[in-house]
Amino acid sequence: MTNAISGFSKLSKAEKISWITKNYFNGDQKSSKLLQTYWNSDEQLQQLHDEFIENTISNYYLPLGVAPNFMINGQNYTIPMAIEESSVVAAASKAAKYWSARGGFKTTVLNTKKVGQVHFTYTGDKEVLTSFFQDILPIVYKEVQHITTNMEKRGGGILDIELRDKTQDIPHYYQLHCTFNTLDAMGANFINSCLEQFAKTLEERFEGDTRFRESKDKLNIIMSILSNYVPECIVRAEVSCPVNDLSERNIEGKEFAEKFVQAIRIAEVEPYRAVTHNKGIMNGVDAVILATGNDFRAVEAGIHAYAARNGSYSSLTGATIENDIFTFWIELPLALGTVGGLTKLHPLVKWCLQLLQNPSAQELMQIVAVAGLAQNFAAVKSLTTTGIQQGHMKMHLMNILNQHSATAQEKKAAVEHFKTTPVTHSAAVTFIENLRK
Amino acid sequence: MTNAISGFSKLSKAEKISWITKNYFNGDQKSSKLLQTYWNSDEQLQQLHDEFIENTISNYYLPLGVAPNFMINGQNYTIPMAIEESSVVAAASKAAKYWSARGGFKTTVLNTKKVGQVHFTYTGDKEVLTSFFQDILPIVYKEVQHITTNMEKRGGGILDIELRDKTQDIPHYYQLHCTFNTLDAMGANFINSCLEQFAKTLEERFEGDTRFRESKDKLNIIMSILSNYVPECIVRAEVSCPVNDLSERNIEGKEFAEKFVQAIRIAEVEPYRAVTHNKGIMNGVDAVILATGNDFRAVEAGIHAYAARNGSYSSLTGATIENDIFTFWIELPLALGTVGGLTKLHPLVKWCLQLLQNPSAQELMQIVAVAGLAQNFAAVKSLTTTGIQQGHMKMHLMNILNQHSATAQEKKAAVEHFKTTPVTHSAAVTFIENLRK
Repeated sequence: MTNAISGFSKLSKAEKISWITKNYFNGDQKSSKLLQTYWNSDEQLQQLHDEFIENTISNYYLPLGVAPNFMINGQNYTIPMAIEESSVVAAASKAAKYWSARGGFKTTVLNTKKVGQVHFTYTGDKEVLTSFFQDILPIVYKEVQHITTNMEKRGGGILDIELRDKTQDIPHYYQLHCTFNTLDAMGANFINSCLEQFAKTLEERFEGDTRFRESKDKLNIIMSILSNYVPECIVRAEVSCPVNDLSERNIEGKEFAEKFVQAIRIAEVEPYRAVTHNKGIMNGVDAVILATGNDFRAVEAGIHAYAARNGSYSSLTGATIENDIFTFWIELPLALGTVGGLTKLHPLVKWCLQLLQNPSAQELMQIVAVAGLAQNFAAVKSLTTTGIQQGHMKMHLMNILNQHSATAQEKKAAVEHFKTTPVTHSAAVTFIENLRK
Repeated sequence: MTNAISGFSKLSKAEKISWITKNYFNGDQKSSKLLQTYWNSDEQLQQLHDEFIENTISNYYLPLGVAPNFMINGQNYTIPMAIEESSVVAAASKAAKYWSARGGFKTTVLNTKKVGQVHFTYTGDKEVLTSFFQDILPIVYKEVQHITTNMEKRGGGILDIELRDKTQDIPHYYQLHCTFNTLDAMGANFINSCLEQFAKTLEERFEGDTRFRESKDKLNIIMSILSNYVPECIVRAEVSCPVNDLSERNIEGKEFAEKFVQAIRIAEVEPYRAVTHNKGIMNGVDAVILATGNDFRAVEAGIHAYAARNGSYSSLTGATIENDIFTFWIELPLALGTVGGLTKLHPLVKWCLQLLQNPSAQELMQIVAVAGLAQNFAAVKSLTTTGIQQGHMKMHLMNILNQHSATAQEKKAAVEHFKTTPVTHSAAVTFIENLRK
């Protein structure tokens, strides 16, 4: 077996890179130089970033952009976005400006409950387990106090611990289904630590309980873990204006609004469309999630499962026209943190949070929901009017030019040329080739 | 209204930062300095990264790590991972090594069809539309040839264009449901360009068709767009070994395998668990998606919708014990590219693809699926044996130390101390405080 290695994690960064270069790049020093090109010249800062994860060899650059002119509940925001895809920041900025002239975004946090579960099997009588659970509940709370005290002092903590019978799904399967308020923390470590303590108490008390001592009933902890499904940690954002205010050069407000509502309706009933519809929303959501040091995998999983909660995968946004008023809204489950994790650790995350005026977790939920709604508005507006390619390819032009190592002068000429001509990959390439003839 | 601005996108990068600094940071120059700290010293390279998106002000660092020892279909890989979360790369590396000693990962690409749709309304008789569609189909293919020629030369192109009646969902709603083979390209631009051309042909031929000229029947294109839902672009990865080979110091192979299968079963039936279960899979998937310049929002949306395809959100992995053989597998819908987009543009993406020995899109699908499966194996193994916190907090220790600006010497002492003591946030803080007394 080639290229296998033992003890790789214990090598220094230089040794790791040297092993990789030797084994996968034929020892070509250019390849290790490239990684170094991306190191920060401040060694201490670089070490900080290296230590975020394991086996770090370089910094992967995601462009950090900003979208200004977001009016949210009457306050103006410039939203930081970390994303590699062209046209997302432009679309956000455009939608922000569009709605700032039409009353801005209105947001409400509907709930902030987070969930964790202890999954276990129990082979005995359900009634016995239920009464045992009721009896030990005060002890469960007591034995977790060393973990919860600080959170409780700040106003959060455990909201509820419920015994759930899941034996209809799997023989002998039960849960402790627990809800938490973790305030401005995302709360994963807090919740997981609580749950593992619950499991420990449950197991220990079961062992020592006279009701089970003589029977052959067994209790077996399978696992204890928070849920990233947070349908009760919900924020709503909306925009609204008279249909006539939507009129533009090429289209009447009423016609635009009706077509827009139709497009949303399609995303509600057709999963093939819903997936891409929601993907566009997540372009906005994830860009802010990343910039503010939150975990986009957690957010993605929770949101998409929520989109499928009624049995068929569907749109996260809704739109109506009532009494000539157009309303467009989103409801998102979002478990976010503005303390803990990377928030105080990654200097650019700190910077992004400061740009957002150091929001609480609830404020950040609202900003993120707005970014998602704005993104969807821009996408559906393009799709139902000019089509998506025109705008997207215009934004993508610079990438095509860079692929062909265009000079500053060539870029300028191309941008000028494509102001009036549709951008396609081949048209852009032909244009450069002609310039160079 | 404060902080509103017109023409922001037209400002230079320096002007943008200066406006932000003035409006959101009280003119504090330290805040604009910080952004500059993250610029690359190579101006041309920095400009390349700036031009990926709009309104770029700096580079957001995601740590780029590597996980060695992945044996896939008998070949050894070191997998690049761009991710901010501690313990993901360590878990991947551990699972890779574990399975390299037990036969490695086996993978198969099951299908590679991609989907796009033209959504439209039509108010007339269905039979008339159907025969009209059959008549114009050759013209549809002909008029899109300027877009498809190159793709067809390489062996890809349009697979099928189907007229679908969706009037049961929405009055007058029909689709052209189209499938594509885009080879090593993710294919979004190709598919969207084709679809917009289909829509154009459809509209134009409808206008000119005698069957509709005299009636009042109307055809109205709502939108044309690819789908990120790709249930027919599927890859499978699995690991398998005799149950006895899973035995470790503290647990018998059989007991471990049974508990593991039970944990997977729970993720199949309980959406609260399934979401977090799949989130862990996506830790591995997205880290490779990012490192290889693909679009993780597209992948996330497609995968989670697939997880909900049977009406209830469920696990992406499965596990069985049959004849004392433990098998653990994943099936993922993945539309990836190894050409186009950022793949040739982002120097670190190019590097990562080279590390993976310049895979085709199909090979990359297999590597990504393996990263997801490995991640899930590591997570479920921890959860069902030691619990997740022990390992996670050990990896997170360095972040806590950095939060408290620990020196190299303090870090060394802490790492030594916590080799034998469980890491909690407060224990780590207390340890540093005691050191400093």
